[in-house]
Amino acid sequence: RLFGGLILDIQRKAPFFLSDFKDALSLQCLASILFLYCACMSPVITFGGLLGEATQGRISAIESLFGASLTGIAYSLFAGQPLTILGSTGPVLVFEKILFKFCRDYDLSYLSLRTSIGLWTAFLCIVLVATDASSLVCYITRFTEEAFAALICIIFIYEALEKLFHLGEVYAFNMHNDLDKLTLYSCVCSEPEKPSNETLQVWRSMNKSVENIAWSNLTVSECLEFHGVFHGSACGHHGPYIPDVLFWSVILFFTTFFLSSFLKQFKTKRYFPTKVRSTISDFAVFLTIVIMVLIDYLVGVPSPKLHVPEKFEPTRKDRGWFIDPLGSNPWWTLLIAAVPALLCTILIFMDQQITAVIINRKEHKLKKGCGYHLDLLMVGVMLGICSIMGLPWFVAATVLSISHVNSLKVESECSAPGEQPKFLGIREQRVTGLMIFVLMGLSVFMTSVLKFIPMPVLYGVFLYMGVSSLKGIQFFDRIKLFGMPAKHQPDLIYLRYVPLWKVHIFTVVQLTCLVLLWVIKASAAAVVFPMMVLALVFIRKLMDLCFTKRELSWLDDLMPESKKKKEDDKKKKEKAEAERMLQTGDNESVHLAYGEANLSFPVKTLKYSIDPSIVNISDEMAKTAQWKALAMSTENAKVTRANL
Amino acid sequence: RLFGGLILDIQRKAPFFLSDFKDALSLQCLASILFLYCACMSPVITFGGLLGEATQGRISAIESLFGASLTGIAYSLFAGQPLTILGSTGPVLVFEKILFKFCRDYDLSYLSLRTSIGLWTAFLCIVLVATDASSLVCYITRFTEEAFAALICIIFIYEALEKLFHLGEVYAFNMHNDLDKLTLYSCVCSEPEKPSNETLQVWRSMNKSVENIAWSNLTVSECLEFHGVFHGSACGHHGPYIPDVLFWSVILFFTTFFLSSFLKQFKTKRYFPTKVRSTISDFAVFLTIVIMVLIDYLVGVPSPKLHVPEKFEPTRKDRGWFIDPLGSNPWWTLLIAAVPALLCTILIFMDQQITAVIINRKEHKLKKGCGYHLDLLMVGVMLGICSIMGLPWFVAATVLSISHVNSLKVESECSAPGEQPKFLGIREQRVTGLMIFVLMGLSVFMTSVLKFIPMPVLYGVFLYMGVSSLKGIQFFDRIKLFGMPAKHQPDLIYLRYVPLWKVHIFTVVQLTCLVLLWVIKASAAAVVFPMMVLALVFIRKLMDLCFTKRELSWLDDLMPESKKKKEDDKKKKEKAEAERMLQTGDNESVHLAYGEANLSFPVKTLKYSIDPSIVNISDEMAKTAQWKALAMSTENAKVTRANL
Repeated sequence: RLFGGLILDIQRKAPFFLSDFKDALSLQCLASILFLYCACMSPVITFGGLLGEATQGRISAIESLFGASLTGIAYSLFAGQPLTILGSTGPVLVFEKILFKFCRDYDLSYLSLRTSIGLWTAFLCIVLVATDASSLVCYITRFTEEAFAALICIIFIYEALEKLFHLGEVYAFNMHNDLDKLTLYSCVCSEPEKPSNETLQVWRSMNKSVENIAWSNLTVSECLEFHGVFHGSACGHHGPYIPDVLFWSVILFFTTFFLSSFLKQFKTKRYFPTKVRSTISDFAVFLTIVIMVLIDYLVGVPSPKLHVPEKFEPTRKDRGWFIDPLGSNPWWTLLIAAVPALLCTILIFMDQQITAVIINRKEHKLKKGCGYHLDLLMVGVMLGICSIMGLPWFVAATVLSISHVNSLKVESECSAPGEQPKFLGIREQRVTGLMIFVLMGLSVFMTSVLKFIPMPVLYGVFLYMGVSSLKGIQFFDRIKLFGMPAKHQPDLIYLRYVPLWKVHIFTVVQLTCLVLLWVIKASAAAVVFPMMVLALVFIRKLMDLCFTKRELSWLDDLMPESKKKKEDDKKKKEKAEAERMLQTGDNESVHLAYGEANLSFPVKTLKYSIDPSIVNISDEMAKTAQWKALAMSTENAKVTRANL
Repeated sequence: RLFGGLILDIQRKAPFFLSDFKDALSLQCLASILFLYCACMSPVITFGGLLGEATQGRISAIESLFGASLTGIAYSLFAGQPLTILGSTGPVLVFEKILFKFCRDYDLSYLSLRTSIGLWTAFLCIVLVATDASSLVCYITRFTEEAFAALICIIFIYEALEKLFHLGEVYAFNMHNDLDKLTLYSCVCSEPEKPSNETLQVWRSMNKSVENIAWSNLTVSECLEFHGVFHGSACGHHGPYIPDVLFWSVILFFTTFFLSSFLKQFKTKRYFPTKVRSTISDFAVFLTIVIMVLIDYLVGVPSPKLHVPEKFEPTRKDRGWFIDPLGSNPWWTLLIAAVPALLCTILIFMDQQITAVIINRKEHKLKKGCGYHLDLLMVGVMLGICSIMGLPWFVAATVLSISHVNSLKVESECSAPGEQPKFLGIREQRVTGLMIFVLMGLSVFMTSVLKFIPMPVLYGVFLYMGVSSLKGIQFFDRIKLFGMPAKHQPDLIYLRYVPLWKVHIFTVVQLTCLVLLWVIKASAAAVVFPMMVLALVFIRKLMDLCFTKRELSWLDDLMPESKKKKEDDKKKKEKAEAERMLQTGDNESVHLAYGEANLSFPVKTLKYSIDPSIVNISDEMAKTAQWKALAMSTENAKVTRANL
């Protein structure tokens, strides 16, 4: 039935709509809002800036901010899974770049063509919703999901580090300073020896001649404007060497990363009451940003800062907030736009649904259910609206969404130190997402505050998000197994049932896929990237040939590790009990059998546990009540015997 | 009997003399030599430099290097406890400073007076050896020892950080750089507006006048030499702002600290075979230094480097390698020198013996015994020799000695991850100490290599040594208890027997002593510092009044925590067994009692263990073979019953 899945989604989610607001009454949600607001601002603005460069200002930072805010608010209010955070993704940027180049080469209006492609894509998305295509997500298994998530995390980490390296180019420092000659160092602007034609034209347009420019008094930006050359021992390739900024940025970057990791771990420390610790842990990233902004302000080094547009108006004067899908283009572009729209739809669908699958994982113990069809509908509709308004397109951003979910984890409070707090669920609600994007929309009015945030601090936050998102990925646990001698291997459930070499083969295949994806993403063929993600699903299907179904169920199942292990232990226990009962049946004294049988569970379990899992033993012991049972059963045995 | 203790010491140590060299055949010893050589070089040279400043070059870096090497070699070869590392200590520097000021004020020859004081001190030390005064060390309990060690560690950490802050003054950076105006920034030398008389005199002595100095072409050092003034927007208080150096130093400092801590912990990681891990762990600090030197060299920022004297000759031409104790001083100075010598003796005695007590702790499981009398004899004799040669005095340096011992720890190899490796003992030998000081003596010839070592890296090593030496101090564990809710408290043996508020009182008294010591050390009364350390012993005696003997035996005993706990657990076990036997006696079936009694030990132990010590549970379980016993005893019970 058309829209059958969508109707089911709405029926499933509607009863929770009110509770989606009531459930947000917690300090943790405030922490989550502040953290993710800071985390989302920078990519949206950076992405906008990059897009602005690529499209000569047709779509730039302010459009990106507006679009993200609009899409985010609508999505948080009405989507099936409001825990997903929308953001700008790499493939979309690549797509826009190629499109702009195409339009320039063939003299087409970029904004108009883009609008028609966007409308087609929105239409195709709605068709996918109508045909319940989202139910295909069942083919996205842990294999695909983790390869994709790992890729996105690595991209995050890579980009954080790359941005830091990039600062090294912008803020070049003098590598061969002679401190004794500092008095002789200078870098002044001077007139170019042989001015090029272009330079002469610039001077003419400014009504200046070489003579009436006071070259040696020009600042760096004036010198660049007048096409002067820099001259002196303190000059780098593109101007004067810039002191301190690079090293200060490095300090800010790593301090942010380590401080936020440290504060996040504060929950499991022994000091302070639980309440204080968990609050510090919740606000970890926001606290870090505040501390680092203060330190940066006090030290006073002019580190690069976050620049937020100050006025709410289109970057270029020649465009408004509504774009005509036809514009100056010939009429057939409206039809031909369906072809790139098809590619764009695959891209949107894969990006959106894989992230949604990751968020809806069983591990997260979500109680309000998922809504893949509703999600896709919202993304499609907002994509159409953004296209008409000439704003960038937004889909689910994997790392931001995982960070969002992680920041909303509810854990048991009565945690003794060493004991890992028990995970209870996620604070499922729509308010955090909504507020993040409302704040983002209001950022234009907060420029005076936001301009104090140094970029290296935000890069540090990216690194933190990338690294912390990696933690939950089983794929990395398996990669670690390569460097681990057998005796040190942790007690992972799949190692109990699948031979090690087969685990390694599975990992190698996944790793190969990851490397391939990385190469494609980095190469000129970046546009086919979503196809390759699709290909992952088929590769996984091929693996049915070399692995048994049983093995794959251990390696590639969505059931959380701990649950599986518990069930496995339970099964063993039951088996042992059955054996025990049989044996005791031979024995005459029934009451003794009873006492012994009780006692035998933990003994069996323990004998087993000592062997491979040294890490989990203290947890599991502290958690299970079996110890008391053991102690009690001995008491029982005593009593029983006393009664004899 | 005169020299009775000394003779016993020699008799105890002589049989081990050959093995003291044979036992050094291990890669770990090489690691230890490289680490401590790097760690010792900087304080010896820094101390020499400070002394040089204080005594107008009469005793400076080269004398310090020579003296340390000479004393160190002799001590390592013949001392009772060659694991102790001699070094220069703060109180000695203060003493020398005061003495120099005194001599200048009363027109006495500093070097000669110092020699006579040194000879008296050496004599008094030998008297102390003859009268077996070192046996008084039995009054130095854990209370005194830990307060002193904590103080020295804190001084180490404080000085490492202070030196880093000091770099901030020397390498001032421009806090209000405007990157756009870098072309206009400069700091040139210019002629002073109103030259002072002193300045005029300097010019005259150089045969220069204001006119024939090319002021604007002068380098920083030339400008300072000619008493010029710095002028320009890139000038700080004492010359041009220095770019990059400060922040680069901060990066070097903290990276060194974290990298060496990380590499040291490598032993307990899961990756790589045990051999590789323990080698990395042993060479942690040396590897870190090598890596940091390489990085520093590649980046090329002119960070401050280690400066080693290049020639082996006295700093001042007017002194030789032998000093006359009388010199130009009146004859009675020879006698009066006995008074400051008394103070100096207390200082040497306390510094030396407390450190020796810390090194000889039972926790270190030393097998070759101690030799307090022999130690003091060596220190005394070398002090006399150093005095005659006009070299600084050296006594046991606490933090360096602890680092030395830590770097020679032997631990069990078969460590599963999570299980803490078992501590087996220390590699007791004389070679590491000997080689460290031989290398130090040869440093004069290694200037070309050593000049690449940046000072911030060495400060980072100090921070690492200070922090890692703090770890073994129980006093800090007790301080941590203040901020810990009762349920999170670790299972420390004294918490089992002493009420918490009494533990807190004990800690507060110790903390007060520490603060007092710190204040005295920092104030003008620094000379009485050794007296105050002596006072600690009496304060501890006073505490007999408010604590019972039993409580003090738990809080202030030299027996290691883990051993005490084991004994305590054993006692409980025995008690439980006794009870068990009594109960089973009532029961008719003896074979059953046998089976049950076996089973009951671990049950009791476990029931107990779950309660307060969650941290140690996995360790203890992995270590004890009781688990297997438990499993086996169940099997036994089965068999026994089957035989019925």
